[in-house]
Amino acid sequence: MDETLPRTGTNESGVSQDVLAVFLPSGKRGRFPVGTKVLAAARQLGVDIDSICAGRGICGRCQVSVSSGEFQKFGIHSRPENLCARTALEKRYAELRSLAKGRRLSCSAQLTGDAVIDVPAESQLHKQIVRKKAESRNVEIDRVVRLHYVELPPPGLSDQRSDVARLKQALAAEWGLDELTVAQRLLAELPLLLRRAEWRVTAAVRNGSELVALWPGFHDRVFGLAVDIGTTTIAAHLNDLETGEVVAAAGVMNPQIRYGEDLISRVSFIQQNSGSLENLSAAVRRAVDGLARETAATAGVKGTDIIDMSVVGNPIMHHIFLGIDPLQLGSTPFPLVVDEAVTVPAGALGLRSVNPGVQAYLLPCIAGHVGADTAGVILAEAPHRSDEMTLLIDVGTNAEIVLGNRERLLACSSPTGPAFEGAQISCGQRAALGAIERVRIDPDTLAPRFRVIGSKLWSDDPGFAEATADFGVTGICGSGIIEAVAEMFITGIVSRMGLIDGERFPGCDWLEREGEVYSYRLSGGQPGVLITQTDIRAIQLAKAALYAGTRLLMDMLGVETPDRIVLAGAFGSFIDPKHAMILGMIPDCPARRVRAAGNAAGTGARIALLNRATRREIEALVQRIEKVETAADPDFQKSFVAAMALPHARHPFPHLAKWVPLPSSARKHARQDKAFQDNPHPAQHPKSRC
Amino acid sequence: MDETLPRTGTNESGVSQDVLAVFLPSGKRGRFPVGTKVLAAARQLGVDIDSICAGRGICGRCQVSVSSGEFQKFGIHSRPENLCARTALEKRYAELRSLAKGRRLSCSAQLTGDAVIDVPAESQLHKQIVRKKAESRNVEIDRVVRLHYVELPPPGLSDQRSDVARLKQALAAEWGLDELTVAQRLLAELPLLLRRAEWRVTAAVRNGSELVALWPGFHDRVFGLAVDIGTTTIAAHLNDLETGEVVAAAGVMNPQIRYGEDLISRVSFIQQNSGSLENLSAAVRRAVDGLARETAATAGVKGTDIIDMSVVGNPIMHHIFLGIDPLQLGSTPFPLVVDEAVTVPAGALGLRSVNPGVQAYLLPCIAGHVGADTAGVILAEAPHRSDEMTLLIDVGTNAEIVLGNRERLLACSSPTGPAFEGAQISCGQRAALGAIERVRIDPDTLAPRFRVIGSKLWSDDPGFAEATADFGVTGICGSGIIEAVAEMFITGIVSRMGLIDGERFPGCDWLEREGEVYSYRLSGGQPGVLITQTDIRAIQLAKAALYAGTRLLMDMLGVETPDRIVLAGAFGSFIDPKHAMILGMIPDCPARRVRAAGNAAGTGARIALLNRATRREIEALVQRIEKVETAADPDFQKSFVAAMALPHARHPFPHLAKWVPLPSSARKHARQDKAFQDNPHPAQHPKSRC
Repeated sequence: MDETLPRTGTNESGVSQDVLAVFLPSGKRGRFPVGTKVLAAARQLGVDIDSICAGRGICGRCQVSVSSGEFQKFGIHSRPENLCARTALEKRYAELRSLAKGRRLSCSAQLTGDAVIDVPAESQLHKQIVRKKAESRNVEIDRVVRLHYVELPPPGLSDQRSDVARLKQALAAEWGLDELTVAQRLLAELPLLLRRAEWRVTAAVRNGSELVALWPGFHDRVFGLAVDIGTTTIAAHLNDLETGEVVAAAGVMNPQIRYGEDLISRVSFIQQNSGSLENLSAAVRRAVDGLARETAATAGVKGTDIIDMSVVGNPIMHHIFLGIDPLQLGSTPFPLVVDEAVTVPAGALGLRSVNPGVQAYLLPCIAGHVGADTAGVILAEAPHRSDEMTLLIDVGTNAEIVLGNRERLLACSSPTGPAFEGAQISCGQRAALGAIERVRIDPDTLAPRFRVIGSKLWSDDPGFAEATADFGVTGICGSGIIEAVAEMFITGIVSRMGLIDGERFPGCDWLEREGEVYSYRLSGGQPGVLITQTDIRAIQLAKAALYAGTRLLMDMLGVETPDRIVLAGAFGSFIDPKHAMILGMIPDCPARRVRAAGNAAGTGARIALLNRATRREIEALVQRIEKVETAADPDFQKSFVAAMALPHARHPFPHLAKWVPLPSSARKHARQDKAFQDNPHPAQHPKSRC
Repeated sequence: MDETLPRTGTNESGVSQDVLAVFLPSGKRGRFPVGTKVLAAARQLGVDIDSICAGRGICGRCQVSVSSGEFQKFGIHSRPENLCARTALEKRYAELRSLAKGRRLSCSAQLTGDAVIDVPAESQLHKQIVRKKAESRNVEIDRVVRLHYVELPPPGLSDQRSDVARLKQALAAEWGLDELTVAQRLLAELPLLLRRAEWRVTAAVRNGSELVALWPGFHDRVFGLAVDIGTTTIAAHLNDLETGEVVAAAGVMNPQIRYGEDLISRVSFIQQNSGSLENLSAAVRRAVDGLARETAATAGVKGTDIIDMSVVGNPIMHHIFLGIDPLQLGSTPFPLVVDEAVTVPAGALGLRSVNPGVQAYLLPCIAGHVGADTAGVILAEAPHRSDEMTLLIDVGTNAEIVLGNRERLLACSSPTGPAFEGAQISCGQRAALGAIERVRIDPDTLAPRFRVIGSKLWSDDPGFAEATADFGVTGICGSGIIEAVAEMFITGIVSRMGLIDGERFPGCDWLEREGEVYSYRLSGGQPGVLITQTDIRAIQLAKAALYAGTRLLMDMLGVETPDRIVLAGAFGSFIDPKHAMILGMIPDCPARRVRAAGNAAGTGARIALLNRATRREIEALVQRIEKVETAADPDFQKSFVAAMALPHARHPFPHLAKWVPLPSSARKHARQDKAFQDNPHPAQHPKSRC
């Protein structure tokens, strides 16, 4: 046996009768006197076992079991009998809350012989969060706010300590919380609460230093809300802070929409209507409060049990949520008012549906157009923890682009404008019921078929008309227009330079001519849905801006092909990577290395909610991200013009070519497009961005 | 010359041409290259020179002058010419704000030869506070909130830092403020303020770590409010945080009086009227806010320039101000809800007349009846910094008593009841216009004479009737009743046991008989002012409680005669120490060692306001004060009974006897008072205290 193992104390007879305890999965082990409590042994070895009640047999968080058998590696024979028989405390707990066969409360069970002790995942303080589909990062739980149950001696003539001193000293003695501050708000509640609770309370302590909430008696379920404030929608996920599990999710339209559909119109509204900032702030705060209420109700949770909160959003949403005028973000050089992470008490945000002790954590912003939402995406996708050259793209009115790996990380935003969201498109619309979201064009007949939001049928499937009768085909949304243009390109309808080449397909039913220009008819009826030459130009401008931004970062890092591409955001989930690459929205890359990450910003908020170290991680990382200003870069305009072509005028797409046969006509048509090449509407490049 | 002196760098030619700079009064010295700025030299040596503008020649705080002559001690000849000629910066400053002859701005003037440099008191960062009369402690200024002027580069395409980062980095670079947090409230103001101020701002930084306020441009006058919340009155002193000078003072009746005259009735009111705590809290907070407004107006200061605040008060006033139910303080074992020092933002207290960045600092409480006001008294009188055995007494409805020196410090409170405040006295009243406050009795004729509040004339002075005609003689206040009883005792009217001995002075005009008991008439008319036997008993009970408490502490420390006695509080200023000692309110002590300290609690608040180290000092001290519970002590009741006699049944008053001839009859009358001795109304001892 290993004589170097730690051993502590002797048993009551004064004669050492040590036994060996090995904890799995950590493998930590040590020798202890017979009679040592399993939890005490674990604590001495630094084995990670959870506990809220400090060994009173109430919380049941510290359950373990004993493995049976010969463990030659440790030179012991481990048997359940090598712990003492079930204690009175364990029997009481088993009666009240049930205790599975073989399970022991480590705070009560004592070592009587050599034992290999299994600490199940759910008994570990730092447990892995169960990952959701589309989430790439493993994160373990390390709560910012932790619960600590204490029982206090009541005051008497011989013990006249103040209520605060009594509570703080108990938390220091039992939990080692030495430097605790007490939120002033709690002082008023304290005397009545302690007495009604008969001096047994559960304290919520933030960052090991700040007492933020108190419950009478034993309390072990608390929750955290992760909020993603988008320009269009606000999404919230309520998480069980013990398991990390999402217990409820809800979304709501951002009520600021009544003040302006997009960011720039909201900034203008604030600028033109004095006092309106308060209204916009109040609107988004009320909406977030409503989501807290709604998710709590769905999960059957009390609002006061929501004890932590994390928030992401683009810089303008972030600033307005904090009550900061976003005016500066609307014009060059786009400085943020605050970029560092901000912590704000619930009360200062007017949030009434969460515990008043909540300190909402807003992830840091990165640059003028690269916000806390992008910080969330980075936290979720963790390019900085990988050797892979990772390209993260979050497409909205602006595209946020991040490129790099553990060595370097670059970020910029690019003014794509709202075309990808269906705006500035003749038949375009927001992604809503009846909008065309998928498009295929028959390469032989050039006949279109499509799917609309609200039905899974294609337009040429039987029953399509009936299935969509209630809402009809109302227009085309962002993912639809991308597929339409991409399909038009690979079928040769649209040239490499973006010209609808009606002359090439005389008599084609789906091409309509008006003067010199053609349109492609996707759906019949009046007015129906047409893709016009102007629509194609709008998409070209948007995709060129996106590509040029990406290219700028790639050139700065000398990257030709990223190791992986992650499309973040709702839009990223709806577009087909193949069609995006056909258009040259994203650079060439093996198909299997392109992935839609869903609401990665929201996932990042959730990670920051559940693991306190990740807050420090993203705060430090943001400092070292190199912020690239596309507007300031002379290469950007040049790169932008070259990126107007499909997929690109200069850069080859070898992986894409293996995957989709690009039209052979592309090169031929390039010459016909000379007029466009000479004047590719650079004036349409949206200079003022928001 | 001393070659061990520090020297730093070389001049531009690379050849060391060191000169010696000696700073007075500190005597710190070092060698520096010719051309070194005086302030830079001072900083390197750790010489204490103030500056707000960081060497921009704006604030003028860093002025010094050069001493002329031979300084053999340093081996140099110092001349004003050993600094460079007046710089452009100094000339500009002299034009704008004037610069006295011989004065130099140390941030601009350079060393050209050996020089002895005088740092005048007003240029020192840690300057002594000018002490007021009745203040015993020297305190130097060491502001909790300091001002720092910075000029920021405006944002541009090559510098897109956020407003917060820009400001924080400037404060870190120029002032070494590395770990600064920014109050969330400031974020909303920041962008507009920085731009309107053209990127020149003065920052107020609390404890070197928290940015709490900002002013456009250069700002160098800020103020702090020291508040003493008494049961009856609230007093506030507005202090210039640069000089420590009181620029305005104001007082107001505590508006809680409408809910109850004394503490116990207010606690009862809160107990009986649910929701009334909010009203009492709001009332006192509004009053404090009003005092901030009033003192600022008096001094011609903007409310936003009040940037710090300290508060003292007894435990009940302290708790109600914080919005804490004081119920527990009304009954045994009288536990405080919070004893540690508390810092509360102005907004949480509803204070609108001070800068919203104010963090009000409430001094710690000591025990259930020994509050932040006593902590203030201790800070002001500093018994813990002295070898002298010091007795501090603050008399109110409860007396707070502190005894000790740097070795040990004991504190208790004693239930004197309200007799000393004129309550429970037949003709008693609050100290107000027309109340008798001074009393003398002619030892031969037993004729009284007195003075009333509102006139400096004695009642037997000519013109007294005219001078007091507007208000008349309305009753007798605390200091008056003490002097009356003491004078009655030394003239033999009252026996040692407190009996009005009418039989002894047959036919005396001022003694009135009713049944078996006598009264002494102080003033004529109907009803006039009488001192009744019951009044004497009330005063005896009060003084016995006070003495018994004091005695308990003295016995615990084995002290017979304190080295000094300090009477704190308004009441302490009005009573005559001699009369107090004649009654045996305070123990025997040489007359010159008894002193009234005025509002020492308020002085303590002012000290904590002006010197941040004193906050840590009192917080640490309160931890080590031994809290003595009189109610829990079996000796207290016994001691209380013995203290009913005048001045005391058991303890001699040798110093008093040298000072005032105590009546020879005292001993003789003791026997006559046997009936009283057997039943000294112990039931009247107020058991429930507040």
